[in-house]
Amino acid sequence: MPPVPRDALTGFAADLGGTKTAAARIEGGAVVQRLTVPTNGAAEPDAQIAAIGDLLAQLGHGRGAPLGIAVAGRVDGAGGWHAVNEGTLSGIGDFDLRGALLQAFGRATCLNDAAAAAFAEGLYGAGATSECFAYITVSTGVGGGLVIHNRLLSSANGLSGHVGFVASRLARTACGSGRQATVESVAGGRGIAAAARAAGYADHDARAVFEAAAKGQDWAEQIVTTSARAIAALIGDLTAILGLDTVALGGSIGLAEGYLDRVRHALTEEPALFRPDIVHASLGHDAPLFGALARFQEWETT
Amino acid sequence: MPPVPRDALTGFAADLGGTKTAAARIEGGAVVQRLTVPTNGAAEPDAQIAAIGDLLAQLGHGRGAPLGIAVAGRVDGAGGWHAVNEGTLSGIGDFDLRGALLQAFGRATCLNDAAAAAFAEGLYGAGATSECFAYITVSTGVGGGLVIHNRLLSSANGLSGHVGFVASRLARTACGSGRQATVESVAGGRGIAAAARAAGYADHDARAVFEAAAKGQDWAEQIVTTSARAIAALIGDLTAILGLDTVALGGSIGLAEGYLDRVRHALTEEPALFRPDIVHASLGHDAPLFGALARFQEWETT
Repeated sequence: MPPVPRDALTGFAADLGGTKTAAARIEGGAVVQRLTVPTNGAAEPDAQIAAIGDLLAQLGHGRGAPLGIAVAGRVDGAGGWHAVNEGTLSGIGDFDLRGALLQAFGRATCLNDAAAAAFAEGLYGAGATSECFAYITVSTGVGGGLVIHNRLLSSANGLSGHVGFVASRLARTACGSGRQATVESVAGGRGIAAAARAAGYADHDARAVFEAAAKGQDWAEQIVTTSARAIAALIGDLTAILGLDTVALGGSIGLAEGYLDRVRHALTEEPALFRPDIVHASLGHDAPLFGALARFQEWETT
Repeated sequence: MPPVPRDALTGFAADLGGTKTAAARIEGGAVVQRLTVPTNGAAEPDAQIAAIGDLLAQLGHGRGAPLGIAVAGRVDGAGGWHAVNEGTLSGIGDFDLRGALLQAFGRATCLNDAAAAAFAEGLYGAGATSECFAYITVSTGVGGGLVIHNRLLSSANGLSGHVGFVASRLARTACGSGRQATVESVAGGRGIAAAARAAGYADHDARAVFEAAAKGQDWAEQIVTTSARAIAALIGDLTAILGLDTVALGGSIGLAEGYLDRVRHALTEEPALFRPDIVHASLGHDAPLFGALARFQEWETT
């Protein structure tokens, strides 16, 4: 049983991502109103919180109402907010996010956006029947979250679930995390664009590389396949560590046509025990909102 | 707070390892009597259970008394017992361990021996003050267990905690798990002996390689350092995934002189966030016994 049944989800949620900031009013497990504005990636934390506050005010949020907030970046156990990657939300530095949210909104919990999406997918989405579940989002970077027996794994340093920072034998370059040769640096959009540059296609972003692969261009096919193989190897490692039965892929690359099949194909090299079911995430852009509010309501009841 | 305080541990425990079978009577968190016999690695499961029964009878175990049992090999959520590695307990195949234990002893729980040791170290030993803890045993193979917020991570397939089966960029050969180029295949005793053979020292087992390294022989130093580097890389990966704050090393190689320092040194290449405290396991050969009984008592109270 999930700690919070879906139809008990009632309140407000916000999702501060690298490119968009969304907020929603949720009733009985459904988004009844949703607002989105572009994120100013270079803004200071106070300005980011003010932007969330504007959306919440439009949604009728009153001070102290149930509120869960998902943000890009690492959120530690004390609610401190840290940039994990120079490329995203460069203005946040290290910041007392929990304290600022409590001051602004009366009550709120906060967590990493991929962790929030993982929690929602694990409880209500692609992992609803899974006991040992991982959500992996492959987009500009690679993130994720782990839901084991309906609990979101968390840690005091907020690093738990940052599966994109696992080493990959297919990677060659430094990662924004400071580690060397990680899954993110070869499988994520930034890594794909870097591989295209190295192959002489400096004008190709990840989307253009996928389009070139779809047109049968070998150099692009190789880059996309390498990304999928790195994700498959990560899934094998996570399964050895956690005994996963189900993995859901999300993010613009994770959900791109043909990507899931490439990951499944790469995983056929593994023994059966190390091959969980691999499926698409099913809750779309509502996942971090549902997960953030579920986290708030779980927090309130424990 | 641990789910079972140490001084509440009272009952019986057994530990069926690849080379030795131990059983103990535990009272108030202390081993008051302990018996050990050699394991017959080729014996059928029923014979292994009979051997445990002989020891328990000598300790005064009566049918239905609290009893936790740790075994080498993978134990799934239904209590099924599976060989994970051709080299150890070759006779077990796939076997209904829980059913056989209930028939033999009235009440009992069973789990993997490294998981049991991890649980004890996490609750009462090297990880007693840790929130996110991993135990890694480096001996003939590499195993382990994960204790997150005082819970032992487990999975229906029993694979959870088998961290030796994570891929390693330092490995080249097949692993007994069926995966390719794992941490176990380069860092464990079998892998160390194989590396010695490849270097022209076919008569050297892992112990002899460590002795040669202590005498300053370069070829041996290189093999030992590679083992430690593979464990350090595994610790970095586990920390990205789980946000570990503490890792305890156990096993004959993990506790060998100088090994911990080599692992720590290798980890200095990682960013600070990926460097948990690395310490020796502290409960010695009692760890799987304490962990098995703690698991029984936790099971009984939930």
